[in-house]
Amino acid sequence: MAFLLNVDRTKQTDLEFVFPSCRTREKLEAVAMAAVPSTPLLKDELDIVIPTIRNLDFLEMWRPFFQPYHLIIVQDGDPSKKITVPDGFDYELYNRNDINRILGPKAPCISFKDSACRCFGYLVSKKKYVFTIDDDCFVAKDPSGKEINALEQHINNLLTPSTPFFFNTLYDPYREGADFVRGYPFSLREGVQTAVSHGLWLNIPDYDAPTQLVKPHERNTRYVDAVLTVPKGAQFPMCGMNLAFNRQLIGPAMYFGLMGDSQPIGRYDDMWAGWCVKVICDHLGYGVKTGLPYIWHSKASNPFVNLKKEYNGIYWQEDVIPFFEAVKLPKESTTVQECYIELSKQVREKLGKVDVYFNKLADAMVTWIEAWDELNPSENSGTSTA
Amino acid sequence: MAFLLNVDRTKQTDLEFVFPSCRTREKLEAVAMAAVPSTPLLKDELDIVIPTIRNLDFLEMWRPFFQPYHLIIVQDGDPSKKITVPDGFDYELYNRNDINRILGPKAPCISFKDSACRCFGYLVSKKKYVFTIDDDCFVAKDPSGKEINALEQHINNLLTPSTPFFFNTLYDPYREGADFVRGYPFSLREGVQTAVSHGLWLNIPDYDAPTQLVKPHERNTRYVDAVLTVPKGAQFPMCGMNLAFNRQLIGPAMYFGLMGDSQPIGRYDDMWAGWCVKVICDHLGYGVKTGLPYIWHSKASNPFVNLKKEYNGIYWQEDVIPFFEAVKLPKESTTVQECYIELSKQVREKLGKVDVYFNKLADAMVTWIEAWDELNPSENSGTSTA
Repeated sequence: MAFLLNVDRTKQTDLEFVFPSCRTREKLEAVAMAAVPSTPLLKDELDIVIPTIRNLDFLEMWRPFFQPYHLIIVQDGDPSKKITVPDGFDYELYNRNDINRILGPKAPCISFKDSACRCFGYLVSKKKYVFTIDDDCFVAKDPSGKEINALEQHINNLLTPSTPFFFNTLYDPYREGADFVRGYPFSLREGVQTAVSHGLWLNIPDYDAPTQLVKPHERNTRYVDAVLTVPKGAQFPMCGMNLAFNRQLIGPAMYFGLMGDSQPIGRYDDMWAGWCVKVICDHLGYGVKTGLPYIWHSKASNPFVNLKKEYNGIYWQEDVIPFFEAVKLPKESTTVQECYIELSKQVREKLGKVDVYFNKLADAMVTWIEAWDELNPSENSGTSTA
Repeated sequence: MAFLLNVDRTKQTDLEFVFPSCRTREKLEAVAMAAVPSTPLLKDELDIVIPTIRNLDFLEMWRPFFQPYHLIIVQDGDPSKKITVPDGFDYELYNRNDINRILGPKAPCISFKDSACRCFGYLVSKKKYVFTIDDDCFVAKDPSGKEINALEQHINNLLTPSTPFFFNTLYDPYREGADFVRGYPFSLREGVQTAVSHGLWLNIPDYDAPTQLVKPHERNTRYVDAVLTVPKGAQFPMCGMNLAFNRQLIGPAMYFGLMGDSQPIGRYDDMWAGWCVKVICDHLGYGVKTGLPYIWHSKASNPFVNLKKEYNGIYWQEDVIPFFEAVKLPKESTTVQECYIELSKQVREKLGKVDVYFNKLADAMVTWIEAWDELNPSENSGTSTA
């Protein structure tokens, strides 16, 4: 338990100094800490971002795994509501008033009344890595009955390379007991840096409203013991429920779009981010992994409400996905910001015809990058401030 | 056990009539049949192709699963050696003399002293589907201890659609308990026809000689409970050890190349077929699946011998794989044969520079198609003769 000695919880971060609503709780409960792994990986290099509208009791179950890390809580909805966080967690919390104050005229690029607001947490984080999780996600068990440390698996995924240029039939070749199979080019075995680790869900699967309506009782009980790289050129549906990424590599592309309040669409925030991120990772040569870890998704959201949020997205994605599959970014775009601005232009040009919403979204993409650069002025130095 | 009544083992097939070395054994052992599934899927539409140089005792373990099906055994090496097949299996057997007699001047396109000879079995089959397996592969068990009916899983893979155009994070969406996740375009949910089902291996993984040498004791113990479609545009290393395909859809592309005796390369037969098949499947809109079923691969081949066979392939694949990734087939190529002939031209043009071997291979690719068309004259009618 040597790491306990290194936890300096008296040190105030720059952010805590600037924003009074950030709070840090000091009470560490010995009984809970006993279960904490003795060497929390990337303890000072990773933030956990949680969007919420309720008290964060779900953290109790995650205490053994999350307590060593710093949390960034993005409170959605009514800012006057007080959200309670279990004792012993180190966190900062932002409500809509904080977002408006910090971003000023750029604040409208952050969605309201939609979990898309979570990307504000990515903006204010100063860490190299981010893990984001929904507050209805609990600790899952592997087939042996052992509780899964989802964060540890995400970190492993992010710290080992990806293989987007050729498919390995035995899945992640860097995992213990696995390797590249016969016929895998040796020149590609070094892999590339991993930008994204997309985790999955046991119990309630991440279905759209029509599928929820048709299969209300379907539960995901299949534990697939694999992590794999989504090949270059292939698009995938990225879910924000259980997601980690290298913020330094890809952060500025992790914008969750304009959703929810006063927008014609919801529940496509993570999809939008996923499409943009994948195109930019493919362009810059970074990898996107999917598979392990699983979390336990406890509660299906209301399919009727979801249908109302989704119907435009279900229609639009038939044009939007082919657009992303065809996007070409110019060689001159060598940073994520440059790629993202270029992407915003193409969104306006090509998707503006699908619906005027995409013109607004293209504007917001630019605003998001401006906000990112404003809050992360030292980013281009390539070093984490954490 | 109603199917037993339908097994007409007295009926001689056309092939048995033409080729005297084909034999059918009649003794069905009641004790073994008791374990046979009551409804063997595609019994009259699938051949099992086995290349071998030894007695086929390994079939005893497969009896409950394979006995209802017809076997095509391709005997490699010395044709005067007598290969014995356990009683009760319905089979035809071809040795080198048979191959030479049947193909005449085209016989050199079939490799000798290499398991690449197996593709002769694909040529003479008259069935819609083929399953091919190595004779050092045994029945594996799933994590519950149940013996895996690999053939049944392959058939399920082939009879359900593939999803090459967009990645589904919950793997095979057609499997019970799974579906397409949120954000998956509805227009793509019908999927496409599956051409190939690539199965995996527990125990001895399919490693190249360098990896075998570096990790002599590594065993694959991880049962990954998933089937997935290799996305369009992504290449993969196809292993011929445990492989099934829709012969009617893709058969003419399943050529295992020039390997072994008097060739500068071995152990790249299945890889070659895989690269060609994938390019043509992508062009024609068919799917390639990988994952389940597992077989138990019993014995690692000699890594020193393998190194001698592989070293050119290991070097050449650094050019060959980028070639296949860049290949474009013309719109006018609408049949597998047309695609394959076009591919042979590009192989000659682009890979002939890598080594003169590829000119020989390009010639053999053309010969293979001529042989295919000669032995399968009615194929273009689109109906199986089985």
